Amino acid sequence: MKTFLLFLICLSNSLIGQRSHSETAVQIKNNGLEELYAFEMLKDLTGNIGNRLSGSKNYDKAVEWGKLILEKAGADSVWLEPVMIPHWVRGNEQAFLSLLDKRKIELSVCALGGSIGTAKNGVSAEVIEVKSFEEVKQLGRKAKGKIIFYNRPFDRTNWSPFQAYGGAVNQRTNGAIEAAKVGAIAVLVRSITPAMDDEPHTGAMRYADSIPQIPAVAISTVDAEMLSMELHKHNVSSVHILLSCKTYPDVASFNVIGEICGAEKPEEIVLVGGHLDSWDKGTGAHDDGSGVVQSVEVIRLIKNLKIHPKRTIRAVLFANEENGLKGGRAYAARESNKKEKHIAAIESDAGGTSPRGFGVSSDSLKVEKIKSYSSLLEIVGAEKINKGGGGADISTLESLGTTMIGLNPDPQRYFDYHHSNNDTIDKVHPRELELGAIAMAILAWAISQDGL
Amino acid sequence: MKTFLLFLICLSNSLIGQRSHSETAVQIKNNGLEELYAFEMLKDLTGNIGNRLSGSKNYDKAVEWGKLILEKAGADSVWLEPVMIPHWVRGNEQAFLSLLDKRKIELSVCALGGSIGTAKNGVSAEVIEVKSFEEVKQLGRKAKGKIIFYNRPFDRTNWSPFQAYGGAVNQRTNGAIEAAKVGAIAVLVRSITPAMDDEPHTGAMRYADSIPQIPAVAISTVDAEMLSMELHKHNVSSVHILLSCKTYPDVASFNVIGEICGAEKPEEIVLVGGHLDSWDKGTGAHDDGSGVVQSVEVIRLIKNLKIHPKRTIRAVLFANEENGLKGGRAYAARESNKKEKHIAAIESDAGGTSPRGFGVSSDSLKVEKIKSYSSLLEIVGAEKINKGGGGADISTLESLGTTMIGLNPDPQRYFDYHHSNNDTIDKVHPRELELGAIAMAILAWAISQDGL
Repeated sequence: MKTFLLFLICLSNSLIGQRSHSETAVQIKNNGLEELYAFEMLKDLTGNIGNRLSGSKNYDKAVEWGKLILEKAGADSVWLEPVMIPHWVRGNEQAFLSLLDKRKIELSVCALGGSIGTAKNGVSAEVIEVKSFEEVKQLGRKAKGKIIFYNRPFDRTNWSPFQAYGGAVNQRTNGAIEAAKVGAIAVLVRSITPAMDDEPHTGAMRYADSIPQIPAVAISTVDAEMLSMELHKHNVSSVHILLSCKTYPDVASFNVIGEICGAEKPEEIVLVGGHLDSWDKGTGAHDDGSGVVQSVEVIRLIKNLKIHPKRTIRAVLFANEENGLKGGRAYAARESNKKEKHIAAIESDAGGTSPRGFGVSSDSLKVEKIKSYSSLLEIVGAEKINKGGGGADISTLESLGTTMIGLNPDPQRYFDYHHSNNDTIDKVHPRELELGAIAMAILAWAISQDGL
Repeated sequence: MKTFLLFLICLSNSLIGQRSHSETAVQIKNNGLEELYAFEMLKDLTGNIGNRLSGSKNYDKAVEWGKLILEKAGADSVWLEPVMIPHWVRGNEQAFLSLLDKRKIELSVCALGGSIGTAKNGVSAEVIEVKSFEEVKQLGRKAKGKIIFYNRPFDRTNWSPFQAYGGAVNQRTNGAIEAAKVGAIAVLVRSITPAMDDEPHTGAMRYADSIPQIPAVAISTVDAEMLSMELHKHNVSSVHILLSCKTYPDVASFNVIGEICGAEKPEEIVLVGGHLDSWDKGTGAHDDGSGVVQSVEVIRLIKNLKIHPKRTIRAVLFANEENGLKGGRAYAARESNKKEKHIAAIESDAGGTSPRGFGVSSDSLKVEKIKSYSSLLEIVGAEKINKGGGGADISTLESLGTTMIGLNPDPQRYFDYHHSNNDTIDKVHPRELELGAIAMAILAWAISQDGL
């Protein structure tokens, strides 16, 4: 009889526990969709601050904003975590194409992030179009003194624009290094986007220690097509590029952190996060204003229900994801010296569109555990749990044994806007944005209660 | 040994068959995403014809367009199927609110489809706000001579705006009947949309034989909120409504049909379809220009691969879904007299956003068979197969034992645009639209090969 009673008690606890998760999930969903507050925060961030490049005054403003908004969301404690971040400034940028018939055509370009500037009067040279680093190597001495034009398009046939991006982005990140190796004096890089538009899409590029540094610019896809056509018609005389961008010494800044303290195991952390910095184009509404406001919204939604997680739920607004990852690295370095254990980290850095699920990088058994929450997440259409995923900022926690989880929104539109003037709030839908926040809140809540 | 050989042959056939489906699916996907031709067709339809209300000259033009585009897509045969359709014309429409302080405020309204007009000088009356038919009944004689204002909002907390629509739309469809029963002289109906915008959203309404017919108008959600606020402040003197809409005799028109003839069982049909008519607001880009061009694209994608389905794949562009369903009914009536068997019908009438899967109404075993294609559909993110679904046009085939299947795109944005001036092509994303067409083509192909 005793055993039977014990069984009943366990069963009822288990049922209550289960019911509690799904009841909580429904309450979070209803409140979130009724209030659509993530969008209100995003309007504030993008409208009153705008874009937020590391080292800029706007990034400083965003830090203050982040602290206030986390306090307003009801976080038990909010603090700033010091981190040194890069300070690159765009300055002026222009380019034009000279045709053999003496016509000049202005090109829609912008410096890639981290590029050096040109000489004061710019650089002019013949242009050689390539699609791959193999072609650059084969150019050999022919490339000397020339501008290399990388024009390998985004693979539109891939359902996942994220995979297609991965297949094109090395032109932007490493193109200057490979071109400089064969003596080129600058690179023009086709914008890494499936959209056919007249906006250049910027993004990070790098230099290598022993290789000369040369200027690197993104060119819009429309102008890349036009330039390619003129090159094929042998109409091109030269391209002129002028950039005044410059890298200044690193500056002191912050990650912004707020948390709901765990009631039973406060030292076990479930992190939700996005990055507070953006490129200096558009207003970083999708990238990653969305992830920022969704992370804050997780705190707000849970606090507003007046429920207390067993483990700590912590929102981290990371500094400097775009051109350095200094925020993520500083956070992980500091955490590795603490007694805290990050059991899971959920990042939103793939845009604010309709959530479809999460990608999970962890041990298979833990992935299965996360998959068991699929039925909870179905109420917001975010039930698809894949093995593999995460985010750049939280990737720094891998060595601490943290289960890394990335929100997967519908990916079709993201790279149309990415790193360009088109990344603005009119491209974000209030319900879709909120649904992502709700999905993160449901998952963070479940993990905070059950452990992992 | 013989048995073993037979086993090997069966196995290899089965493997070839399986490989063939998935190879075909990949080819369809790659061609579709490379060409994005559904969007080109939609630009043509919405840009060169515009909206296409049953009985209008534009609908006639759309019939001609549909015939030509199916021929251009490579259909083996294309024909027009006669059907009598309603002819309702909007005319002028206006409304204003008179406040007690003598101010007049123009209201953003439009006639509901099928409404009678007002007297030449319009109608003016006091307004009573309600949220339900129960409230209308309770008004009793108080409603006599008044305008009933239905203001039950769209339930934003439901993940599925389609379900929320279902919970609000009876105000529009049956509001005039219920209000007339208690002596009201007109109805104002809050637009059935989750969006807070200044556009009225039209849609079908009906009258009942023995109940007086009264004018019915949609009011924008912004003005519905404003009117409600003024009513609660007891500031409202009256509302004036003037409509000159009118119903003319039915006119002769057509469904437009094109097919790829089945190579082995031509009498077994897999139908893909959408409706060619739209409301006379916006350009019907999502509703249902998307379904129309996706259905044509199914034919084009399969013909372009130069592959021959075993069973017939037929695209039907139905007439008059919006205000009568005469196209779907005429099609089913004619089919019931033929020797053809419609084994499955796939309708796209939920917008041109990113596909997530299909809903299937059929016997459980057939639903399971469709679910087995989930892995084929995963390459375009359309792998979620639910029991239950279909579409209004193909619902007419239910009595013929047809498995009814509806494309399920991401639903969050659809009702923002639905039946309003906001339903225009700038709200449609070329890749998302194409992915829906590809998903339909893959599913139609698999069923045409395997039967059901």
